[in-house]
Amino acid sequence: MSRGPSLQLNGTGRLRHFLTIDGLNRELLTEILDTAEGFAGVSERTVKKVPLCRGKIVANLFFENSTRTRTTFELAGKRLSADVLNLNITASSTSKGETLLDTLRNLEAMHVDMFVVRHAVSGAAHFIARHAAPGVGVINAGDGRHAHPTQAILDMFTIRRHKGEFTGLRVAIVGDILHSRVARSQILALNTLGVSEVRVIAPRTLLPVEARSLGVHIYHDMDEGIRDVDVVIMLRLQKERMQGAMLPSEHEYYRLFGLTEARLAAADSEAIVMHPGPINRGVEMASEVADGSRSVILQQVSYGIAVRMAVISIIIGTQNQQGQDNKG
Amino acid sequence: MSRGPSLQLNGTGRLRHFLTIDGLNRELLTEILDTAEGFAGVSERTVKKVPLCRGKIVANLFFENSTRTRTTFELAGKRLSADVLNLNITASSTSKGETLLDTLRNLEAMHVDMFVVRHAVSGAAHFIARHAAPGVGVINAGDGRHAHPTQAILDMFTIRRHKGEFTGLRVAIVGDILHSRVARSQILALNTLGVSEVRVIAPRTLLPVEARSLGVHIYHDMDEGIRDVDVVIMLRLQKERMQGAMLPSEHEYYRLFGLTEARLAAADSEAIVMHPGPINRGVEMASEVADGSRSVILQQVSYGIAVRMAVISIIIGTQNQQGQDNKG
Amino acid sequence: MSRGPSLQLNGTGRLRHFLTIDGLNRELLTEILDTAEGFAGVSERTVKKVPLCRGKIVANLFFENSTRTRTTFELAGKRLSADVLNLNITASSTSKGETLLDTLRNLEAMHVDMFVVRHAVSGAAHFIARHAAPGVGVINAGDGRHAHPTQAILDMFTIRRHKGEFTGLRVAIVGDILHSRVARSQILALNTLGVSEVRVIAPRTLLPVEARSLGVHIYHDMDEGIRDVDVVIMLRLQKERMQGAMLPSEHEYYRLFGLTEARLAAADSEAIVMHPGPINRGVEMASEVADGSRSVILQQVSYGIAVRMAVISIIIGTQNQQGQDNKG
Repeated sequence: MSRGPSLQLNGTGRLRHFLTIDGLNRELLTEILDTAEGFAGVSERTVKKVPLCRGKIVANLFFENSTRTRTTFELAGKRLSADVLNLNITASSTSKGETLLDTLRNLEAMHVDMFVVRHAVSGAAHFIARHAAPGVGVINAGDGRHAHPTQAILDMFTIRRHKGEFTGLRVAIVGDILHSRVARSQILALNTLGVSEVRVIAPRTLLPVEARSLGVHIYHDMDEGIRDVDVVIMLRLQKERMQGAMLPSEHEYYRLFGLTEARLAAADSEAIVMHPGPINRGVEMASEVADGSRSVILQQVSYGIAVRMAVISIIIGTQNQQGQDNKG
Repeated sequence: MSRGPSLQLNGTGRLRHFLTIDGLNRELLTEILDTAEGFAGVSERTVKKVPLCRGKIVANLFFENSTRTRTTFELAGKRLSADVLNLNITASSTSKGETLLDTLRNLEAMHVDMFVVRHAVSGAAHFIARHAAPGVGVINAGDGRHAHPTQAILDMFTIRRHKGEFTGLRVAIVGDILHSRVARSQILALNTLGVSEVRVIAPRTLLPVEARSLGVHIYHDMDEGIRDVDVVIMLRLQKERMQGAMLPSEHEYYRLFGLTEARLAAADSEAIVMHPGPINRGVEMASEVADGSRSVILQQVSYGIAVRMAVISIIIGTQNQQGQDNKG
Repeated sequence: MSRGPSLQLNGTGRLRHFLTIDGLNRELLTEILDTAEGFAGVSERTVKKVPLCRGKIVANLFFENSTRTRTTFELAGKRLSADVLNLNITASSTSKGETLLDTLRNLEAMHVDMFVVRHAVSGAAHFIARHAAPGVGVINAGDGRHAHPTQAILDMFTIRRHKGEFTGLRVAIVGDILHSRVARSQILALNTLGVSEVRVIAPRTLLPVEARSLGVHIYHDMDEGIRDVDVVIMLRLQKERMQGAMLPSEHEYYRLFGLTEARLAAADSEAIVMHPGPINRGVEMASEVADGSRSVILQQVSYGIAVRMAVISIIIGTQNQQGQDNKG
């Protein structure tokens, strides 16, 4: 399946869909971060709205349930003054690829401007973007194990807010790399933005075989991997992965890889702790760490709205421009 | 049950509910089409909103699930700047007619301005309209096998956009006339608007006994019925009707009544193909036809929003006027 | 558990949460009623909106399903021009109190301004208010058997609209006092607002042991208790309470405590009849009474929107002021 940059960028290199970090250069990632910076203030105003996308229709096209992610996109759309349509599509109604396309064509015919797609199958958002009509943007809100690019961007935004610059940073990503749709996006973004070192800390059973090719340093020992890092990104442990003997037990996982105050002491004294949520307290990390002074986990949630506003408004801008070029 | 025009028209012949095509004259149907024409452009603008119904509350009162129809009314309401309330009422909570009235009275007490009603029982929208408070409008969004009048109007709108006038046209309606809530509405509308010939093409088992009284020409042979028509309206085959031996098999149905490129060649060379969606490809028609140059199926979806905006705004206008007359 | 006034009032006695009638003085209750009076007209306008809460986000956080109550808060929020987020939280996803706090923290991080909380457990809204961030308001929309204060206020509003003043009134509350989350709120409000007599009419099995301490007169005979009252407030009989032998049968209940035209004749000739809905006709009262000239049941529903607009806007006002004081 082609996932080249040409699908998400138009002829002049502008973002028309947002599917993956793959193929986006530092300038484009920085533009998204800078745009989000402008929106971060909107959420803190008394009137939390800007009229940028008034009259636009953003459809949340969720093929798997995720109230949390859907809510952040709904709020982002509403703060841009767009109308937001929530469509939960059961797997049964779209068992044939043909039917998915018919659903898409119908929504396009209703003049929906943007689809925010969540799907259990890797590549689903790419498939929809490839078949979307001109003028319609697609955002990947998580496709299988593949990518969750707005989560990766909000992580970058959080790091930049706290650390100022990416150069010189050491960042550790800890946990279930194998099943994470976030980890791959994060590694790509961190390397593109120029951090000096990305470390991956995971048990052997939760590390994909291609890990070494991603430009990371691999650790299987938590205490060793966390030493002197500036940023610790904890991944969520999907409890359903425990079956199949990939992991001995939650207790054992916590003993080996759980982030405690004691372990965190080995990191840089100014290190920040991140997690995409929801946290399994006592599994991925101790409550003291989750609620402690180093934790920026709730700021990630706040910044997530600003980042999604940035991505939606940039794409709507590109698509509007495209529409006018087509007319002119 | 009385379904006379007096229920949906006020004393001066203005539309106060929209329940059925039955009893509406050509002037009124043309007024709806002309109003929809004005809204068709709104969906194509950058800002897809007009402030006509700002502060009004439109409640989607759906007793059976239909995401597709609900979404079109939700979008129509939002483009008119109304607030839209989605209420899915399970059959269980309204097993008694009395309870349905209590539900209605409660929503009226909350000052809901309009109910868009979808119900599995024929006459449900009429029942609600008959008991609605003055100033509250009711739109029938499909009641059992009886009527689905906004669908019929959007079909008329699509025909007029492509053919300019109704006089002189030959129109064929193909398929399960017996169980269709759309077919009866379409036949009434086509005859009222003055087409020269309405044909019905169907197997004997899917034709209601009263068909002959509707002012149509009946065909049981597809190739014969389609000859020289200007418009082909395909009906959706409800797969659950296959049981009970009304139909031999999907394959057999397609062989006898499926619309193929070869069959379409017998129609007028400028003939258009319509379908209310969702299409069963390879049952009602070939994919080449559904996606071909004669198909206007996706335009029907687009026009559906404009038509629903027209009906909502006309009724809100009548009800506002009524309210002021009552005060004055 | 402390439920003192300090939780719902700020340092200057302004309402920052609305959790219970307990601890609110007559001035504050009157201020809510007066504010609601101003909004009662908004629902009757052609444009039913005021821009008071534009850009604010009100989240309906419903841990148990209640379409009716949720809809009134949704409409109240929308008429104030707020964005309303509906979140149905299943019990399973919040089995641990810790997780509830994480959910709360996440929504706060998304800059939600107000939580409208419905929960089966008494004290849930207090728990959330106690942990809410500064600037975030909480409204109790029903917690277990404990309180449902906006319902009590809308009852007071209805009484004042019809009777003008509270002093001199005799009010009877009839039915399942034991399991009602409304009755306790009503008794507190009526006594605070200075009615001359609150009567409670109930079978012994449906009366809480502490009833006598609430400042009411207790009757077990309906004909005796209703004599000369100005207001009859009927409570809803939860049918699931019938099990466990608390009640003989619906029929027997109706015979002893059901409100009929004949019984109502013993009340004051201008007495009004109230019920929180939905009514069990033929159990709590006869249909003739529910739909009769003394019934103000549907007006309660209308006034419910105005009262919720009042409570939301007062709290948002307090929280805005708080925010500015913190900055200044």
